[in-house]
Formats: sequence, C-alpha cells, structure tokens
Amino acid sequence: MIELNHTVCAPATSVGAGAVSVVRISGPQTMAVVDRIVRFRSGTAAQAPGYSLKFGTVEGLDDVVVALYRAPHSYTGEDAAEISCHASPYIVSELLGRLAEAGCPLAEPGEFTRRAFVNGKMDLAQAEAVADVIASSTSAQHRVALNQLRGGYSAELRGLRQQLLELSLLLELELDFSEEDVEFADRSRLRALLDVAYTHCRQLADSFRVGNAIRSGVPVAIVGAPNSGKSTLLNALLRDDRAIVSDIPGTTRDTVEETCVVDGILFRFIDTAGIRAATDEVERLGIERTFRKISEAEILLGVVDITEPEAAALKAVEAMLERADLAHQKLLILANKCDKSGVNKNVNAVNNYVLSADSKMNNVELLEISAKTGFGLDQVRSYLSSHAGIASASGTLVTNARHAAALRTAADSLRAVSDGLDRGLPSDLLAEDLRAALATLGTITGAITSDEILGEIFSKFCIGK
Amino acid sequence: MIELNHTVCAPATSVGAGAVSVVRISGPQTMAVVDRIVRFRSGTAAQAPGYSLKFGTVEGLDDVVVALYRAPHSYTGEDAAEISCHASPYIVSELLGRLAEAGCPLAEPGEFTRRAFVNGKMDLAQAEAVADVIASSTSAQHRVALNQLRGGYSAELRGLRQQLLELSLLLELELDFSEEDVEFADRSRLRALLDVAYTHCRQLADSFRVGNAIRSGVPVAIVGAPNSGKSTLLNALLRDDRAIVSDIPGTTRDTVEETCVVDGILFRFIDTAGIRAATDEVERLGIERTFRKISEAEILLGVVDITEPEAAALKAVEAMLERADLAHQKLLILANKCDKSGVNKNVNAVNNYVLSADSKMNNVELLEISAKTGFGLDQVRSYLSSHAGIASASGTLVTNARHAAALRTAADSLRAVSDGLDRGLPSDLLAEDLRAALATLGTITGAITSDEILGEIFSKFCIGK
Repeated sequence: MIELNHTVCAPATSVGAGAVSVVRISGPQTMAVVDRIVRFRSGTAAQAPGYSLKFGTVEGLDDVVVALYRAPHSYTGEDAAEISCHASPYIVSELLGRLAEAGCPLAEPGEFTRRAFVNGKMDLAQAEAVADVIASSTSAQHRVALNQLRGGYSAELRGLRQQLLELSLLLELELDFSEEDVEFADRSRLRALLDVAYTHCRQLADSFRVGNAIRSGVPVAIVGAPNSGKSTLLNALLRDDRAIVSDIPGTTRDTVEETCVVDGILFRFIDTAGIRAATDEVERLGIERTFRKISEAEILLGVVDITEPEAAALKAVEAMLERADLAHQKLLILANKCDKSGVNKNVNAVNNYVLSADSKMNNVELLEISAKTGFGLDQVRSYLSSHAGIASASGTLVTNARHAAALRTAADSLRAVSDGLDRGLPSDLLAEDLRAALATLGTITGAITSDEILGEIFSKFCIGK
Repeated sequence: MIELNHTVCAPATSVGAGAVSVVRISGPQTMAVVDRIVRFRSGTAAQAPGYSLKFGTVEGLDDVVVALYRAPHSYTGEDAAEISCHASPYIVSELLGRLAEAGCPLAEPGEFTRRAFVNGKMDLAQAEAVADVIASSTSAQHRVALNQLRGGYSAELRGLRQQLLELSLLLELELDFSEEDVEFADRSRLRALLDVAYTHCRQLADSFRVGNAIRSGVPVAIVGAPNSGKSTLLNALLRDDRAIVSDIPGTTRDTVEETCVVDGILFRFIDTAGIRAATDEVERLGIERTFRKISEAEILLGVVDITEPEAAALKAVEAMLERADLAHQKLLILANKCDKSGVNKNVNAVNNYVLSADSKMNNVELLEISAKTGFGLDQVRSYLSSHAGIASASGTLVTNARHAAALRTAADSLRAVSDGLDRGLPSDLLAEDLRAALATLGTITGAITSDEILGEIFSKFCIGK
C-alpha cells in the first residue's frame, strides 16, 4: 500500500550514455524537499508557480535545472518536481542519497503511475497502457497502446458499463415491485439491451486475438521438409530487420523467439526445428508440442525445395495442405531455390496441384523465391504485412490478457442473464448475474479494485514510472 | 564546422529501461520547430516565456512536456527546448524523424556543448569538464571535474595568463625603445615575474600525475612469488567493490584493467601475471614490459606466503625491496596466509629484516593478512586510500592530457625566455618565446583555437551533449 502523505523520488531516466539524467519527486513535501537540497539563484521552489523551470546548484555535486509542477497539474496529480542533472551514475546516486536524507525515500516501481491512478488522473486501463506505450517497438503496438493511454478504450468500457447499468435499472424497478409478483420490466426491451451488451462484450474479448498479435507479434510458422531452406529463409527475413532494430541503442530482442518488424507490424516466428520421424516417446511428445504451436500460427510459410523431383515437391506441398487449418490459417507456399535453372516445370506442377485441390483454397498462395539470393523476399514481406489481419482491424483492440479474461467472464455472466431470461428466472437472480458482470468490468478500469490487484499491476512497472 | 544558424536536435537521455526520455533542441528556430510538431493545450512555444513548461501533444505519438529556454539563458546560450516523452525507443525515433521533417536535423556529438563554447557560455576547459563530470564514477573524480566545470581551473589559467601578459608588457615597452638600444625593462623584475610564472606553470603540469591518477585510477601493482596469493588478494579487494558498483545499472568496468574504489578513490591494478623465468626472447620482452609497468605504479602490494620456510620468505621480501623504487613508490609488504598457525616466527623475521634494511625504509610497511579469509583486508584498504597521494593533494589538479602537454610546452617556452635572459638575448627574441607560451596556454581554454582542435575535442562527446 502506498502512503500518499509521503513524498518519494526515483530516477526517471535510464543510466547509461547520455547527456542528461532526470530524478523525479512527487508528494506533498516536494517543494520543501527541493529547497532543502537545491540552492537557487533567486527565490525558492516553494515560491515558484507550477510549470516553471528553475536553475540551481546542488552543493558540491552539480548544477541542475528543476521543473516544478503544482497539484493537481502534474503526472501524479500531486506537487511534483523533476531535477535534470548531468547524466552521471555517480551524480544520480548522490542525488538520491541526499533526497533520502532530506526525508524523501525511493519510490516503489510504478509508484508515480499508481499515485496518478489513486489521485484520479487516469484509470487502471490507462495506467496499464503507460507500460505498454513504453514497451512499444512498432507503430501498430504504439497506436493501440496510445489509444488506451488516451482513454479511448476506457470510454468504450464506460459505454458498456452504461448499457449494463440501464439493464440493471430495468431489473431493479421490477425488484421493487417483486412482492406484487408483477413482471414490470419490458422483457423484450431487456432482451434487446442484453443482446447488444453481450455482443459488445464478446467483440472486445475476441479482439484480444488481434490485440495480442499486435502486442506480442503475429505468430508465423515456417514449415517444410529438412533442407528445403527454412533456416535460410528465417535468417534472410531477420537479417534486414536486425539492422534496423539495432540502430536504436538499448533495444533488446526476445531471445526465446525470433521476431521481425515488417511495415510496422511485429511478427513472431515459432520454432519448428526438430520435426522429424520420432524414434522414441520423448521425441514424439516434443514433436506433438511443436505441431500444437504450429496450429497457433496465423500464417504458415511452407518452404518447398523446387529443385527436388516433381513427386517429392508435390508430396511436400500435400503435407503442408494437410497440416494447415485453412479455415483459420493462411498458407503461403514458397517455391524455394528458384535461382537454380530448370525449375519452371516443377513450379508449374505445384501451382496446378494447388489450383486443382478443392475446398478453402482461397487461403493458399504460391510465390517463387530464393532465400539464398533474396529473390522474392520483398513479396514475402508484403504478403506477411497484408495478411497479418491487423491492418484491417478497426475499433478498439484489447491487448491485455487480464482485460480479455475479465471481458470473457463478464460475457459469461451476461450469457447467464440471457439464459435465465429464457428460463423465466425471477428478477433478483438475473440481477445477481448482472451485478457480477458489472463488477468484473469494473476491475478493468479500477472502478472496483483491490490492493492485491494494484500491487501486481504496478510491480511490473519500472522504477521512476 | 557547426552552423549556428541551423536549429538541431538530439536525444539527451540514454535509451533503455526508464520512465522518461528527453529530446533536446537548440538554435534560432527552436520555438517555430516546437510549434510545428507539438500542439499545446493553449498558446504556442513562440509566445511562451523562458524557463516555462508547456504540456502538449505530438499528434498520434505521445503526450509531452516541453521545457522552453530563451537565449541567452540556456545551456547553449541559444533558444532551446527539451521535450520529455515516454521512454520508448519507438517514440524517440519517431520524434527525431518528425523534427527532421520540420527542418531540424540531428546534432553532431557534443554539438550542444560546442555551441555553448562558441556562444561564450563556457570556455574550452569547462566544456571538456562536461564530459569528465558525466564519466565520473568516484567522488574524487567528480570533485575535480566539477571544479573544472565551474571554472575554477579556468580562473587559475587566467591568472597565469595575466602574469605572462604583464611580462609581455614589460618586454614590449623595451621593444618600443629597442632602436635606442636601451634595456628599458627592469630585468630583475622581469626575472622575478618569470620565475613565478614558470613555477606556476610547472606545478600545474606536474599536478597531472595526481590528476590523472584520480581520473584514470591510482596505479597499484601486486607483486610476489607464484602461489603467494596475489590473485586471491586481487579478487578479494575487487569482490567487495564489485557489489557496490554493479548496484548502478549501466555502469561499465574497464575490461582491460581491474579497478576498485576505496573511500571514493579509484585504484587501477596493473596486470603482473606472467612474471617467471623467461625461456625465450619473446617471453623476456613481455616480462620486461611488465616490469616497466610495475615501475609506473604508485603503490606496490608485495605478497609473501608466510607459511613458507623463513629463508624463502626473506628471499621474497628481498626481491621486492630490490624491485621497488622507494624514492617514488610505496611498498606494502603483506604477510599472507596468516590464518594458518605457527606463522608468528616468520612474520617477526620479515619484520626484523625490513627494519634492519637501511635507507628509504620509511616508504615500506608490513601488514599481516589472509587474502582467503579476508583478515586484515580492511587495513589494506585504509593503507591504499591514505597512501594514494590524492587525499593530501590541494589546489588545482590537471586531469586532461591535452592540458598537461600544453602546460609543459608553455613551461618550456618560459624556460627558454629565462635562458635567453641569462644569455642576454635581445628583447624581441625573448618576446617571441613569451608569445609562444601565451598562445599555448590559450589553447587550453580555447582563447586561441582551431576548428581541428575543436572537432577532435567534441567528437569524443556523446550525442545530445
């Protein structure tokens, strides 16, 4: 539990090569603390208006610029200050030491944002978006996080809650008259409102699939026979991207799965190495796990060594068509090694095979490439970005697993209300499920919350945020 | 060459885990550039007074706080702004992109400080101190760098230049009358002034030994026979310090030489591994190089395995006394493995040997330790900090090799004036050497400088400073 009557501080910038470091202070004693450790050329922090900058000296340590904010016009909604000093780990650690001596202890991770939430500057969904905005590394991630931070998502949830409150009101009216055993509420109107709210709730919950793909990357599996060129293709796709990402110092890659950014969309490559004829039970289980992961991919890149005999190439394509769940997945067959001569016959054979295969074939396409020379890879990239199912996504996207779970639970409660209505359950039982749905939705924006949930959410923040 | 009529920008904070990133802008078009990319709740940057903060929005990217500075009251002396955004590499790179589009290209490394120098906000010695302040990791380094940044060193140099200008004046007077072949200047007064200036110049140049020790670490060599416990001692000294230094994220250690901080003083351990009987010429050259490095140490830690037979222990001590240049170096003999029983007799023998050895023995001390258990290591640390020859250092310390070289050259020129005076050289020849001394001193603060020197100095700065 944070103590709002405490004044706390923390470094707000990362320590490393840079010109400036910023130490942030927030709480009722901010101005007094600043005046205790900074000597200004003229006046004091206590006398200064909000939104002003003062130049001063921390005795024997550094010359600093202090940005002063007056409650409620600050990030936290409290009196706050940001001390900009030279970007030296020594100066920052000395500064924090002097702040501690001046009665201003180090803030917990996420404490500034938590204070902003507690002081009503933002709701919980917006607070969670702060971490997402910071972690965004693609334009798509950033767009979704920023919309959530700006309250677009919260507004949509408020609309949903409003619908449920209306429903609730209708039911409460009925409850008031329940002694008289009258069905006061217009149940057809209730049903109509309920259907709208349920659909809305489900849509938001379902948007998590796309939202999560944006946040964590669109899952892509590269499949194909051994030596068809899967690794070469992956490395070729990663290589171009790697150069871009490593331009920015401090960016880290997920080491577990390879990712690459195409047209501002993050793609996450599922490791499909190790698929071969199983020789024992352990290996068989590993292969099953890999197949399960492949089934979670949005897009399959099926690599065929087009220099193989026609029968082998067709067999490889057949295996891919079998493997892919074309109702939910997109398959791009890549006729690889097209830099070699005499492959046209095989390419045509594969093409005809794909065209002749019946059912759902509109989710299958064919491209000629050479992973080795890079030929056709630009087309692979356009395919990925245009088939990611993100560009077309509109409206609010849920990117947070906690929110998606709450929305699913709320939808289940609404379904229960709907079922109860069908079975002619009394209003008080219906009202109970409705209240459950409202409470669940309330946990998303923090209208209803607990210290435990807050602790868990903000502990994932970094110090200084 | 920088173009002062350009407005430039750069990230001022390092990209990494953090809450806030700062992008810095400076130049005559600062306010127009800011107004082009930030939409403020009310008013514009162009209308805002200096030292004010404005809250605004970068369309589709982030909500930001902009700190505005009006010329000449900014770091660079120009109109300047600092945009604080969320600490996301994506946002920072987008922001820099938009600034570039708005006609504000990326600054060169050190360009902000270079502009501050060109605009007369600081001299060259102060500008160089900025980089030192940022790189400081001990209180001693920081104290020296801060003094230089605050102009303490520059003031001292101005005093020195003043003395030389007075000398110059006396000589010029004489030159005006040289046709009449009169020794107008009071040559005894000239001589007195010259001696003061020369001594001052030499003192500053000589202070580089201590200044450099503070900046790069006091050189310490751990010597002793194989298996006497040299590595165990080094690791024990480093272990305790490592924990402290690694507290601060982003601090990096010099990987070439091990360093540790004791009482705010940086110590640098010279690698003395590989000293053994040489078997070939190459090895012999390597050993010679090591011995030469040992001779550069301020302090020798001589480790003796005190559990060895008395004769062996005494022989080891003898070798150390021979090796150490006790006129310039301090030797601390460490009777190691004192956790073992029955070592008292040997300790006494070594002690008596050291006491009985004649000459310069006031630079030799003996301590009983156990590098393995840590016994006595606190005393080793106090020895290091009290014998570093830094605590006692007072007055201005030169920490910059470029400055030290300039001071030595200036001293040489003054010596030439002095010699000329002795040999009765005419005033115009004396004046020439004096002008050379003045010019050399001028390069330190940048009173006299060239684009080439400036380019070299500022290219070592980081982007954003």
